[in-house]
Amino acid sequence: LNRVLVTGATGLIGRHVVDALLAGGHEVHAVSSRAIDSNRCRWHRADLLEPDAARTVVGAARPTHLLHLAWGMPRVGLWNSPENLNWHEASIRLWREFSASGGGRAVVAGSCAEYEWGEPVLSERSTPLRPATLYGSCKDALRRVLEASARAAGQSLAWARIFFVYGPNDHPDRLVPSVVARLTAGEPAPVTEGTQVRDFLHVRDVATALVALMGSDIQGPVNVGSGEGVAIRDVVQELGRMAGRPELIELGALPRPDGDPDAIIAEVSRLCDELGWSPSVGLREGLADVLAGARPAVR
Amino acid sequence: LNRVLVTGATGLIGRHVVDALLAGGHEVHAVSSRAIDSNRCRWHRADLLEPDAARTVVGAARPTHLLHLAWGMPRVGLWNSPENLNWHEASIRLWREFSASGGGRAVVAGSCAEYEWGEPVLSERSTPLRPATLYGSCKDALRRVLEASARAAGQSLAWARIFFVYGPNDHPDRLVPSVVARLTAGEPAPVTEGTQVRDFLHVRDVATALVALMGSDIQGPVNVGSGEGVAIRDVVQELGRMAGRPELIELGALPRPDGDPDAIIAEVSRLCDELGWSPSVGLREGLADVLAGARPAVR
Repeated sequence: LNRVLVTGATGLIGRHVVDALLAGGHEVHAVSSRAIDSNRCRWHRADLLEPDAARTVVGAARPTHLLHLAWGMPRVGLWNSPENLNWHEASIRLWREFSASGGGRAVVAGSCAEYEWGEPVLSERSTPLRPATLYGSCKDALRRVLEASARAAGQSLAWARIFFVYGPNDHPDRLVPSVVARLTAGEPAPVTEGTQVRDFLHVRDVATALVALMGSDIQGPVNVGSGEGVAIRDVVQELGRMAGRPELIELGALPRPDGDPDAIIAEVSRLCDELGWSPSVGLREGLADVLAGARPAVR
Repeated sequence: LNRVLVTGATGLIGRHVVDALLAGGHEVHAVSSRAIDSNRCRWHRADLLEPDAARTVVGAARPTHLLHLAWGMPRVGLWNSPENLNWHEASIRLWREFSASGGGRAVVAGSCAEYEWGEPVLSERSTPLRPATLYGSCKDALRRVLEASARAAGQSLAWARIFFVYGPNDHPDRLVPSVVARLTAGEPAPVTEGTQVRDFLHVRDVATALVALMGSDIQGPVNVGSGEGVAIRDVVQELGRMAGRPELIELGALPRPDGDPDAIIAEVSRLCDELGWSPSVGLREGLADVLAGARPAVR
Protein backbone atom coordinates (compact mmCIF):
# COMPACT_ATOMS: atom_id res chain seq x y z
CA LEU A 1 0.00 0.00 0.00
CA ASN A 2 1.26 3.44 -0.91
CA ARG A 3 0.93 6.24 1.61
CA VAL A 4 0.77 9.29 -0.64
CA LEU A 5 1.28 12.79 0.68
CA VAL A 6 -0.50 15.32 -1.56
CA THR A 7 0.25 19.01 -1.08
CA GLY A 8 -2.03 21.69 -2.47
CA ALA A 9 -4.79 19.14 -2.00
CA THR A 10 -7.60 21.70 -2.11
CA GLY A 11 -6.22 23.46 -5.18
CA LEU A 12 -7.48 23.34 -8.75
CA ILE A 13 -5.45 20.23 -9.57
CA GLY A 14 -5.08 18.81 -6.06
CA ARG A 15 -8.70 17.94 -5.45
CA HIS A 16 -8.78 15.86 -8.63
CA VAL A 17 -5.47 14.22 -7.75
CA VAL A 18 -6.93 13.19 -4.40
CA ASP A 19 -9.95 11.69 -6.19
CA ALA A 20 -7.75 9.83 -8.67
CA LEU A 21 -5.52 8.46 -5.90
CA LEU A 22 -8.49 7.26 -3.86
CA ALA A 23 -9.94 5.62 -6.97
CA GLY A 24 -6.61 3.82 -7.31
CA GLY A 25 -6.84 2.45 -3.77
CA HIS A 26 -4.02 4.51 -2.26
CA GLU A 27 -3.88 5.79 1.32
CA VAL A 28 -4.07 9.53 0.82
CA HIS A 29 -2.63 12.11 3.21
CA ALA A 30 -3.79 15.51 2.03
CA VAL A 31 -2.02 18.70 3.09
CA SER A 32 -3.86 21.98 2.90
CA SER A 33 -4.29 25.11 4.96
CA ARG A 34 -7.96 24.99 3.98
CA ALA A 35 -10.46 22.45 5.27
CA ILE A 36 -10.95 19.36 3.16
CA ASP A 37 -14.57 18.43 2.57
CA SER A 38 -13.93 14.74 2.36
CA ASN A 39 -13.62 12.15 5.09
CA ARG A 40 -12.16 9.65 2.68
CA CYS A 41 -8.59 10.76 3.25
CA ARG A 42 -6.46 11.97 6.14
CA TRP A 43 -6.28 15.73 6.27
CA HIS A 44 -3.11 17.37 7.59
CA ARG A 45 -3.97 20.98 8.19
CA ALA A 46 -0.80 22.94 7.56
CA ASP A 47 0.56 26.03 5.89
CA LEU A 48 3.77 24.82 4.26
CA LEU A 49 5.17 28.35 4.37
CA GLU A 50 5.50 27.92 8.15
CA PRO A 51 9.03 26.74 8.98
CA ASP A 52 8.03 23.61 10.93
CA ALA A 53 4.99 22.57 8.91
CA ALA A 54 6.75 20.11 6.60
CA ARG A 55 8.47 18.35 9.49
CA THR A 56 5.22 17.97 11.40
CA VAL A 57 3.22 16.72 8.42
CA VAL A 58 5.85 14.29 7.13
CA GLY A 59 6.43 13.00 10.66
CA ALA A 60 2.72 12.30 11.04
CA ALA A 61 2.08 10.86 7.57
CA ARG A 62 5.35 8.90 7.02
CA PRO A 63 4.64 8.94 3.29
CA THR A 64 6.13 6.44 0.85
CA HIS A 65 5.15 8.73 -2.04
CA LEU A 66 4.93 12.49 -2.46
CA LEU A 67 2.83 14.47 -4.92
CA HIS A 68 3.86 18.08 -4.38
CA LEU A 69 1.47 20.52 -6.03
CA ALA A 70 1.31 23.39 -3.53
CA TRP A 71 2.55 26.76 -4.75
CA GLY A 72 0.97 30.17 -4.44
CA MET A 73 -1.08 30.06 -7.63
CA PRO A 74 0.62 32.40 -10.10
CA ARG A 75 -1.75 34.81 -11.74
CA VAL A 76 -1.33 37.75 -14.05
CA GLY A 77 0.86 40.19 -12.17
CA LEU A 78 2.17 37.60 -9.71
CA TRP A 79 4.66 35.85 -11.98
CA ASN A 80 7.40 38.00 -10.50
CA SER A 81 6.17 38.20 -6.91
CA PRO A 82 8.73 37.53 -4.15
CA GLU A 83 6.15 35.03 -2.87
CA ASN A 84 7.70 32.61 -5.36
CA LEU A 85 10.88 32.59 -3.23
CA ASN A 86 8.82 31.48 -0.25
CA TRP A 87 7.34 28.57 -2.16
CA HIS A 88 10.72 27.55 -3.51
CA GLU A 89 12.07 27.54 0.03
CA ALA A 90 9.04 25.70 1.43
CA SER A 91 9.39 23.08 -1.30
CA ILE A 92 13.04 22.46 -0.40
CA ARG A 93 12.03 21.99 3.24
CA LEU A 94 9.28 19.57 2.27
CA TRP A 95 11.61 17.58 0.05
CA ARG A 96 14.28 17.42 2.75
CA GLU A 97 11.79 16.05 5.28
CA PHE A 98 10.36 13.55 2.79
CA SER A 99 13.85 12.45 1.88
CA ALA A 100 15.05 12.19 5.51
CA SER A 101 11.98 10.16 6.49
CA GLY A 102 12.80 7.52 3.88
CA GLY A 103 10.25 8.51 1.25
CA GLY A 104 10.95 6.83 -2.06
CA ARG A 105 9.07 8.22 -5.05
CA ALA A 106 7.99 11.79 -5.72
CA VAL A 107 6.20 13.68 -8.46
CA VAL A 108 6.56 17.45 -8.26
CA ALA A 109 4.60 20.03 -10.23
CA GLY A 110 6.70 22.10 -12.58
CA SER A 111 5.54 24.36 -15.37
CA CYS A 112 5.87 25.11 -19.06
CA ALA A 113 7.07 28.52 -17.77
CA GLU A 114 10.47 26.91 -17.18
CA TYR A 115 11.08 26.78 -20.92
CA GLU A 116 12.26 29.47 -23.24
CA TRP A 117 9.13 30.38 -25.15
CA GLY A 118 9.49 30.87 -28.90
CA GLU A 119 9.48 27.57 -30.75
CA PRO A 120 5.88 26.34 -30.91
CA VAL A 121 6.49 22.83 -29.58
CA LEU A 122 8.41 22.55 -26.31
CA SER A 123 10.39 19.41 -25.62
CA GLU A 124 12.00 18.09 -22.42
CA ARG A 125 14.95 16.93 -24.49
CA SER A 126 15.74 19.90 -26.68
CA THR A 127 14.03 23.13 -25.61
CA PRO A 128 16.33 25.48 -23.64
CA LEU A 129 15.37 26.22 -20.05
CA ARG A 130 15.32 30.00 -19.93
CA PRO A 131 12.41 31.11 -17.77
CA ALA A 132 11.18 34.66 -18.36
CA THR A 133 9.67 35.02 -14.89
CA LEU A 134 10.64 34.58 -11.25
CA TYR A 135 7.96 31.89 -11.03
CA GLY A 136 9.56 29.91 -13.85
CA SER A 137 13.04 30.39 -12.41
CA CYS A 138 11.99 29.23 -8.95
CA LYS A 139 10.38 26.10 -10.40
CA ASP A 140 13.36 25.38 -12.66
CA ALA A 141 15.84 25.86 -9.82
CA LEU A 142 13.76 23.65 -7.54
CA ARG A 143 13.94 20.83 -10.07
CA ARG A 144 17.72 21.15 -10.27
CA VAL A 145 18.11 20.89 -6.51
CA LEU A 146 15.63 18.03 -6.14
CA GLU A 147 17.04 15.99 -9.02
CA ALA A 148 20.58 16.30 -7.66
CA SER A 149 19.38 15.42 -4.18
CA ALA A 150 17.37 12.44 -5.43
CA ARG A 151 20.40 11.21 -7.39
CA ALA A 152 22.65 11.52 -4.35
CA ALA A 153 20.17 9.76 -2.06
CA GLY A 154 18.98 7.09 -4.52
CA GLN A 155 15.43 8.40 -4.65
CA SER A 156 13.03 8.43 -7.56
CA LEU A 157 11.68 11.71 -8.93
CA ALA A 158 9.56 12.80 -11.85
CA TRP A 159 9.09 16.48 -12.59
CA ALA A 160 5.75 17.28 -14.24
CA ARG A 161 5.92 20.35 -16.50
CA ILE A 162 2.26 21.25 -16.57
CA PHE A 163 0.96 23.30 -19.50
CA PHE A 164 -2.42 25.08 -19.61
CA VAL A 165 -4.87 23.59 -17.14
CA TYR A 166 -8.55 24.43 -17.15
CA GLY A 167 -11.54 23.10 -15.27
CA PRO A 168 -14.12 23.91 -12.61
CA ASN A 169 -13.03 25.99 -9.59
CA ASP A 170 -10.24 27.69 -11.49
CA HIS A 171 -9.04 31.12 -10.45
CA PRO A 172 -11.50 33.76 -11.78
CA ASP A 173 -8.68 35.84 -13.33
CA ARG A 174 -7.72 33.10 -15.76
CA LEU A 175 -8.95 33.00 -19.34
CA VAL A 176 -11.64 30.32 -19.36
CA PRO A 177 -13.30 31.21 -16.02
CA SER A 178 -13.19 34.93 -16.76
CA VAL A 179 -14.94 34.46 -20.10
CA VAL A 180 -17.42 32.01 -18.61
CA ALA A 181 -18.24 34.48 -15.82
CA ARG A 182 -19.01 37.18 -18.40
CA LEU A 183 -21.11 34.83 -20.50
CA THR A 184 -23.15 33.56 -17.58
CA ALA A 185 -23.70 37.16 -16.45
CA GLY A 186 -24.85 38.05 -19.96
CA GLU A 187 -22.05 40.61 -20.30
CA PRO A 188 -19.66 41.19 -23.20
CA ALA A 189 -16.43 39.20 -22.91
CA PRO A 190 -13.54 41.25 -24.33
CA VAL A 191 -10.58 39.11 -25.37
CA THR A 192 -7.48 39.45 -27.54
CA GLU A 193 -7.52 38.62 -31.24
CA GLY A 194 -7.02 35.07 -30.00
CA THR A 195 -4.71 33.75 -32.69
CA GLN A 196 -2.30 32.51 -30.01
CA VAL A 197 -2.17 28.74 -29.80
CA ARG A 198 -1.98 27.02 -26.41
CA ASP A 199 -1.99 23.47 -25.13
CA PHE A 200 -5.03 23.04 -22.89
CA LEU A 201 -5.60 20.03 -20.70
CA HIS A 202 -8.64 19.47 -18.52
CA VAL A 203 -7.83 19.23 -14.83
CA ARG A 204 -9.14 15.65 -14.56
CA ASP A 205 -6.66 14.60 -17.24
CA VAL A 206 -3.86 16.49 -15.50
CA ALA A 207 -4.73 14.54 -12.34
CA THR A 208 -4.71 11.13 -14.00
CA ALA A 209 -1.40 11.98 -15.71
CA LEU A 210 0.19 12.91 -12.35
CA VAL A 211 -1.09 9.78 -10.65
CA ALA A 212 0.12 7.62 -13.55
CA LEU A 213 3.53 9.30 -13.29
CA MET A 214 3.61 8.56 -9.59
CA GLY A 215 2.98 4.89 -10.25
CA SER A 216 5.77 4.69 -12.83
CA ASP A 217 9.51 4.89 -12.40
CA ILE A 218 10.05 7.58 -15.02
CA GLN A 219 12.79 9.98 -13.91
CA GLY A 220 13.19 13.67 -14.64
CA PRO A 221 11.07 16.18 -16.52
CA VAL A 222 7.87 15.09 -18.25
CA ASN A 223 5.60 17.50 -20.09
CA VAL A 224 1.97 17.27 -19.01
CA GLY A 225 -0.21 18.55 -21.82
CA SER A 226 -2.47 17.30 -24.57
CA GLY A 227 0.17 17.60 -27.26
CA GLU A 228 -2.27 19.60 -29.37
CA GLY A 229 -2.45 23.32 -29.87
CA VAL A 230 -5.76 25.19 -29.97
CA ALA A 231 -6.17 28.86 -30.80
CA ILE A 232 -7.50 30.94 -27.90
CA ARG A 233 -10.07 32.23 -30.40
CA ASP A 234 -11.47 28.76 -30.97
CA VAL A 235 -11.75 28.18 -27.22
CA VAL A 236 -13.64 31.37 -26.46
CA GLN A 237 -15.88 31.15 -29.52
CA GLU A 238 -16.78 27.60 -28.55
CA LEU A 239 -17.65 28.87 -25.06
CA GLY A 240 -19.84 31.57 -26.61
CA ARG A 241 -21.70 29.06 -28.76
CA MET A 242 -22.14 26.59 -25.91
CA ALA A 243 -23.51 29.36 -23.69
CA GLY A 244 -25.88 30.37 -26.49
CA ARG A 245 -24.35 33.89 -26.57
CA PRO A 246 -21.67 33.87 -29.31
CA GLU A 247 -22.20 37.62 -29.90
CA LEU A 248 -20.78 38.41 -26.45
CA ILE A 249 -17.28 37.26 -27.44
CA GLU A 250 -15.39 40.39 -28.50
CA LEU A 251 -12.29 39.21 -30.33
CA GLY A 252 -9.59 41.85 -30.60
CA ALA A 253 -11.04 44.07 -27.85
CA LEU A 254 -7.93 43.55 -25.71
CA PRO A 255 -4.32 43.96 -26.84
CA ARG A 256 -2.00 41.00 -26.62
CA PRO A 257 0.57 41.39 -23.87
CA ASP A 258 4.13 42.24 -24.90
CA GLY A 259 6.10 39.15 -25.69
CA ASP A 260 3.03 36.90 -25.70
CA PRO A 261 4.24 33.89 -27.72
CA ASP A 262 2.34 32.68 -30.78
CA ALA A 263 2.28 29.06 -29.70
CA ILE A 264 2.99 26.99 -26.58
CA ILE A 265 2.44 23.29 -27.22
CA ALA A 266 3.76 20.34 -25.23
CA GLU A 267 5.81 17.64 -26.89
CA VAL A 268 4.24 14.63 -25.16
CA SER A 269 6.14 11.54 -26.28
CA ARG A 270 7.44 10.96 -22.74
CA LEU A 271 3.95 11.20 -21.27
CA CYS A 272 2.09 9.30 -23.98
CA ASP A 273 4.66 6.82 -25.35
CA GLU A 274 6.99 6.14 -22.41
CA LEU A 275 4.30 6.31 -19.74
CA GLY A 276 1.43 5.13 -21.94
CA TRP A 277 -0.98 7.75 -20.68
CA SER A 278 -3.60 9.43 -22.87
CA PRO A 279 -6.14 12.17 -22.23
CA SER A 280 -9.81 11.29 -21.90
CA VAL A 281 -11.58 14.65 -21.76
CA GLY A 282 -12.15 16.34 -25.13
CA LEU A 283 -12.04 20.13 -25.27
CA ARG A 284 -15.80 20.50 -25.92
CA GLU A 285 -16.66 18.20 -23.07
CA GLY A 286 -14.18 19.93 -20.80
CA LEU A 287 -15.48 23.39 -21.56
CA ALA A 288 -19.05 22.18 -20.98
CA ASP A 289 -17.84 21.01 -17.57
CA VAL A 290 -16.64 24.51 -16.73
CA LEU A 291 -19.87 26.11 -17.98
CA ALA A 292 -21.95 23.67 -15.93
CA GLY A 293 -19.99 24.60 -12.80
CA ALA A 294 -20.48 28.33 -13.28
CA ARG A 295 -23.24 30.32 -11.63
CA PRO A 296 -26.12 30.62 -14.12
CA ALA A 297 -26.90 34.05 -15.47
CA VAL A 298 -29.52 36.10 -13.70
CA ARG A 299 -31.71 37.33 -16.54
CA LEU B 1 29.20 54.94 3.03
CA ASN B 2 28.46 51.29 2.31
CA ARG B 3 27.13 49.08 5.07
CA VAL B 4 28.34 45.66 3.99
CA LEU B 5 26.97 42.48 5.47
CA VAL B 6 29.54 39.66 5.18
CA THR B 7 28.41 36.11 5.89
CA GLY B 8 30.92 33.36 6.59
CA ALA B 9 33.08 36.13 8.01
CA THR B 10 35.31 33.77 10.02
CA GLY B 11 35.79 31.34 7.16
CA LEU B 12 38.85 30.84 4.96
CA ILE B 13 37.83 33.59 2.55
CA GLY B 14 35.62 35.64 4.86
CA ARG B 15 38.32 36.85 7.23
CA HIS B 16 40.31 38.26 4.30
CA VAL B 17 37.18 39.82 2.81
CA VAL B 18 36.56 41.60 6.11
CA ASP B 19 40.15 42.90 6.08
CA ALA B 20 39.84 44.10 2.48
CA LEU B 21 36.53 45.83 3.17
CA LEU B 22 37.90 47.60 6.24
CA ALA B 23 40.95 48.67 4.24
CA GLY B 24 38.51 50.16 1.72
CA GLY B 25 36.77 52.22 4.40
CA HIS B 26 33.49 50.30 4.43
CA GLU B 27 31.27 49.78 7.46
CA VAL B 28 31.49 46.03 7.94
CA HIS B 29 28.80 43.89 9.56
CA ALA B 30 30.20 40.41 9.95
CA VAL B 31 27.96 37.38 10.44
CA SER B 32 29.36 34.26 11.98
CA SER B 33 28.38 31.63 14.48
CA ARG B 34 31.95 31.78 15.74
CA ALA B 35 33.43 34.69 17.68
CA ILE B 36 35.21 37.32 15.64
CA ASP B 37 38.58 38.35 17.03
CA SER B 38 38.41 41.90 15.76
CA ASN B 39 36.76 44.94 17.28
CA ARG B 40 37.07 46.82 14.01
CA CYS B 41 33.73 45.62 12.68
CA ARG B 42 30.29 44.87 14.04
CA TRP B 43 29.85 41.20 14.77
CA HIS B 44 26.39 39.65 14.39
CA ARG B 45 26.55 36.29 16.09
CA ALA B 46 24.17 34.04 14.18
CA ASP B 47 23.80 30.61 12.68
CA LEU B 48 22.15 31.26 9.33
CA LEU B 49 20.71 27.75 9.33
CA GLU B 50 18.34 28.89 12.09
CA PRO B 51 15.04 30.00 10.51
CA ASP B 52 14.95 33.50 12.01
CA ALA B 53 18.65 34.32 11.90
CA ALA B 54 18.65 36.15 8.57
CA ARG B 55 15.72 38.33 9.56
CA THR B 56 17.35 39.29 12.85
CA VAL B 57 20.75 40.05 11.34
CA VAL B 58 19.46 42.00 8.34
CA GLY B 59 17.07 43.93 10.58
CA ALA B 60 19.96 44.93 12.84
CA ALA B 61 22.53 45.69 10.14
CA ARG B 62 20.28 47.27 7.46
CA PRO B 63 22.97 46.54 4.86
CA THR B 64 23.27 48.41 1.58
CA HIS B 65 25.56 45.65 0.27
CA LEU B 66 25.76 41.91 0.82
CA LEU B 67 28.74 39.60 0.44
CA HIS B 68 27.37 36.12 1.01
CA LEU B 69 30.11 33.56 1.52
CA ALA B 70 28.66 31.26 4.19
CA TRP B 71 28.12 27.63 3.19
CA GLY B 72 29.01 24.47 5.02
CA MET B 73 32.50 24.06 3.57
CA PRO B 74 32.36 21.17 1.13
CA ARG B 75 35.10 18.64 1.63
CA VAL B 76 35.87 15.29 0.11
CA GLY B 77 32.86 13.13 0.86
CA LEU B 78 30.56 16.06 1.58
CA TRP B 79 29.89 17.15 -2.00
CA ASN B 80 26.67 15.18 -1.93
CA SER B 81 25.65 15.78 1.68
CA PRO B 82 22.02 16.83 2.32
CA GLU B 83 23.58 19.70 4.30
CA ASN B 84 23.86 21.47 0.94
CA LEU B 85 20.05 21.72 0.85
CA ASN B 86 20.12 23.52 4.18
CA TRP B 87 22.60 26.08 2.91
CA HIS B 88 20.65 26.60 -0.30
CA GLU B 89 17.54 27.24 1.77
CA ALA B 90 19.35 29.50 4.25
CA SER B 91 20.77 31.49 1.34
CA ILE B 92 17.31 32.05 -0.12
CA ARG B 93 16.10 33.30 3.27
CA LEU B 94 19.07 35.65 3.56
CA TRP B 95 18.52 37.00 0.07
CA ARG B 96 14.82 37.53 0.70
CA GLU B 97 15.52 39.54 3.84
CA PHE B 98 18.25 41.55 2.16
CA SER B 99 15.95 42.26 -0.76
CA ALA B 100 12.95 43.14 1.42
CA SER B 101 15.04 45.52 3.53
CA GLY B 102 16.00 47.52 0.45
CA GLY B 103 19.52 46.19 -0.02
CA GLY B 104 20.92 47.13 -3.39
CA ARG B 105 24.06 45.29 -4.44
CA ALA B 106 25.10 41.74 -3.65
CA VAL B 107 28.01 39.46 -4.46
CA VAL B 108 27.38 35.80 -3.75
CA ALA B 109 29.94 33.00 -3.71
CA GLY B 110 29.40 30.38 -6.37
CA SER B 111 31.79 27.68 -7.49
CA CYS B 112 33.56 26.19 -10.49
CA ALA B 113 31.64 23.03 -9.45
CA GLU B 114 28.61 24.51 -11.22
CA TYR B 115 30.23 23.86 -14.59
CA GLU B 116 30.39 20.67 -16.56
CA TRP B 117 34.00 19.60 -16.16
CA GLY B 118 35.78 18.36 -19.25
CA GLU B 119 37.04 21.20 -21.40
CA PRO B 120 40.18 22.61 -19.73
CA VAL B 121 39.14 26.27 -19.71
CA LEU B 122 35.74 27.07 -18.23
CA SER B 123 33.90 30.16 -19.42
CA GLU B 124 30.86 31.98 -18.04
CA ARG B 125 29.67 32.50 -21.59
CA SER B 126 30.07 29.12 -23.21
CA THR B 127 30.68 26.28 -20.74
CA PRO B 128 27.53 24.24 -19.98
CA LEU B 129 26.26 24.29 -16.44
CA ARG B 130 25.97 20.63 -15.55
CA PRO B 131 27.09 20.16 -11.94
CA ALA B 132 28.21 16.66 -11.02
CA THR B 133 27.47 17.09 -7.31
CA LEU B 134 24.66 18.19 -5.05
CA TYR B 135 26.90 21.02 -3.89
CA GLY B 136 27.30 22.30 -7.45
CA SER B 137 23.58 21.89 -8.15
CA CYS B 138 22.56 23.79 -5.02
CA LYS B 139 24.90 26.67 -5.90
CA ASP B 140 23.78 26.73 -9.54
CA ALA B 141 20.09 26.67 -8.58
CA LEU B 142 20.66 29.42 -6.01
CA ARG B 143 22.12 31.66 -8.71
CA ARG B 144 19.11 31.06 -10.93
CA VAL B 145 16.68 32.04 -8.19
CA LEU B 146 18.69 35.06 -7.07
CA GLU B 147 19.27 36.40 -10.58
CA ALA B 148 15.57 36.15 -11.43
CA SER B 149 14.65 37.79 -8.15
CA ALA B 150 17.20 40.58 -8.62
CA ARG B 151 15.90 41.19 -12.14
CA ALA B 152 12.30 41.35 -10.92
CA ALA B 153 13.15 43.70 -8.04
CA GLY B 154 15.69 45.89 -9.85
CA GLN B 155 18.60 44.80 -7.69
CA SER B 156 22.22 44.33 -8.66
CA LEU B 157 23.90 40.95 -8.32
CA ALA B 158 27.23 39.43 -9.25
CA TRP B 159 27.80 35.70 -8.85
CA ALA B 160 31.43 34.81 -8.13
CA ARG B 161 32.36 31.34 -9.40
CA ILE B 162 35.38 30.69 -7.21
CA PHE B 163 37.97 28.18 -8.41
CA PHE B 164 40.72 26.63 -6.23
CA VAL B 165 41.43 28.74 -3.17
CA TYR B 166 44.41 28.16 -0.94
CA GLY B 167 45.90 30.03 1.98
CA PRO B 168 46.47 29.95 5.73
CA ASN B 169 43.75 28.45 7.96
CA ASP B 170 42.43 26.21 5.21
CA HIS B 171 40.64 22.98 6.07
CA PRO B 172 43.26 20.30 6.89
CA ASP B 173 41.69 17.77 4.49
CA ARG B 174 42.43 19.89 1.44
CA LEU B 175 45.49 19.37 -0.75
CA VAL B 176 47.86 22.16 0.22
CA PRO B 177 47.30 22.08 4.01
CA SER B 178 47.40 18.27 4.10
CA VAL B 179 50.76 18.19 2.30
CA VAL B 180 52.11 21.05 4.41
CA ALA B 181 51.06 19.24 7.59
CA ARG B 182 52.99 16.13 6.51
CA LEU B 183 56.04 18.14 5.53
CA THR B 184 56.16 20.12 8.76
CA ALA B 185 55.77 16.86 10.71
CA GLY B 186 58.63 15.35 8.72
CA GLU B 187 56.38 12.59 7.40
CA PRO B 188 56.00 11.29 3.85
CA ALA B 189 53.28 13.08 1.86
CA PRO B 190 51.58 10.62 -0.49
CA VAL B 191 49.84 12.30 -3.42
CA THR B 192 48.50 11.32 -6.84
CA GLU B 193 50.65 11.39 -9.97
CA GLY B 194 49.77 15.09 -9.97
CA THR B 195 49.46 15.68 -13.69
CA GLN B 196 46.03 17.27 -13.15
CA VAL B 197 46.03 20.99 -13.80
CA ARG B 198 44.07 23.33 -11.55
CA ASP B 199 43.57 27.08 -11.22
CA PHE B 200 44.83 28.14 -7.80
CA LEU B 201 44.25 31.56 -6.32
CA HIS B 202 45.56 32.75 -2.98
CA VAL B 203 42.83 33.65 -0.53
CA ARG B 204 43.97 37.30 -0.29
CA ASP B 205 43.50 37.62 -4.04
CA VAL B 206 40.11 35.96 -3.85
CA ALA B 207 39.15 38.54 -1.22
CA THR B 208 40.27 41.55 -3.25
CA ALA B 209 38.47 40.17 -6.30
CA LEU B 210 35.22 39.82 -4.34
CA VAL B 211 35.50 43.30 -2.88
CA ALA B 212 36.27 44.76 -6.31
CA LEU B 213 33.22 42.94 -7.70
CA MET B 214 31.10 44.40 -4.92
CA GLY B 215 32.22 47.89 -5.86
CA SER B 216 31.39 47.42 -9.52
CA ASP B 217 28.07 47.05 -11.27
CA ILE B 218 28.93 43.86 -13.11
CA GLN B 219 25.92 41.57 -13.29
CA GLY B 220 25.77 37.80 -13.37
CA PRO B 221 28.40 35.09 -13.17
CA VAL B 222 32.09 36.02 -12.96
CA ASN B 223 34.84 33.43 -12.68
CA VAL B 224 37.24 34.12 -9.80
CA GLY B 225 40.54 32.44 -10.57
CA SER B 226 44.04 33.25 -11.74
CA GLY B 227 43.36 32.25 -15.34
CA GLU B 228 46.43 30.01 -15.25
CA GLY B 229 46.62 26.30 -14.78
CA VAL B 230 49.29 24.68 -12.63
CA ALA B 231 49.90 20.95 -12.32
CA ILE B 232 49.22 19.58 -8.85
CA ARG B 233 52.65 17.97 -9.14
CA ASP B 234 54.35 21.34 -9.51
CA VAL B 235 52.52 22.69 -6.47
CA VAL B 236 53.44 19.84 -4.15
CA GLN B 237 57.03 19.59 -5.39
CA GLU B 238 57.42 23.31 -4.81
CA LEU B 239 56.13 22.84 -1.27
CA GLY B 240 58.63 20.01 -0.75
CA ARG B 241 61.52 22.17 -1.92
CA MET B 242 60.42 25.19 0.11
CA ALA B 243 60.15 23.01 3.22
CA GLY B 244 63.61 21.60 2.52
CA ARG B 245 62.20 18.06 2.31
CA PRO B 246 61.53 17.35 -1.40
CA GLU B 247 62.07 13.62 -0.83
CA LEU B 248 58.91 13.43 1.32
CA ILE B 249 56.65 14.12 -1.69
CA GLU B 250 55.50 10.73 -2.96
CA LEU B 251 54.05 11.31 -6.41
CA GLY B 252 51.80 8.51 -7.62
CA ALA B 253 51.34 6.98 -4.16
CA LEU B 254 47.61 7.73 -4.28
CA PRO B 255 45.23 6.86 -7.14
CA ARG B 256 43.35 9.63 -8.88
CA PRO B 257 39.66 9.65 -8.04
CA ASP B 258 37.26 8.37 -10.70
CA GLY B 259 36.26 11.13 -13.08
CA ASP B 260 38.93 13.52 -11.81
CA PRO B 261 39.26 15.96 -14.72
CA ASP B 262 42.63 16.66 -16.34
CA ALA B 263 42.28 20.43 -16.16
CA ILE B 264 40.07 23.02 -14.50
CA ILE B 265 41.10 26.54 -15.44
CA ALA B 266 39.08 29.75 -15.18
CA GLU B 267 38.50 31.92 -18.21
CA VAL B 268 39.01 35.32 -16.55
CA SER B 269 38.26 37.99 -19.14
CA ARG B 270 35.24 39.19 -17.16
CA LEU B 271 37.26 39.45 -13.96
CA CYS B 272 40.42 40.90 -15.46
CA ASP B 273 39.23 42.88 -18.51
CA GLU B 274 35.71 43.99 -17.60
CA LEU B 275 36.40 44.52 -13.92
CA GLY B 276 40.08 45.42 -14.28
CA TRP B 277 41.20 43.27 -11.39
CA SER B 278 44.47 41.36 -11.32
CA PRO B 279 46.05 38.96 -8.83
CA SER B 280 48.93 40.13 -6.68
CA VAL B 281 50.11 37.00 -4.89
CA GLY B 282 52.37 34.70 -6.93
CA LEU B 283 52.12 30.97 -6.36
CA ARG B 284 55.56 30.70 -4.69
CA GLU B 285 54.81 33.58 -2.38
CA GLY B 286 51.40 32.19 -1.61
CA LEU B 287 52.68 28.73 -0.80
CA ALA B 288 55.37 30.27 1.45
CA ASP B 289 52.54 32.01 3.25
CA VAL B 290 50.85 28.68 3.96
CA LEU B 291 54.12 27.09 5.09
CA ALA B 292 54.82 30.02 7.41
CA GLY B 293 51.39 29.62 8.99
CA ALA B 294 51.85 25.93 9.64
CA ARG B 295 53.08 24.50 12.92
CA PRO B 296 56.82 23.86 12.59
CA ALA B 297 58.04 20.29 12.67
CA VAL B 298 59.10 18.83 16.00
CA ARG B 299 62.40 17.17 15.24
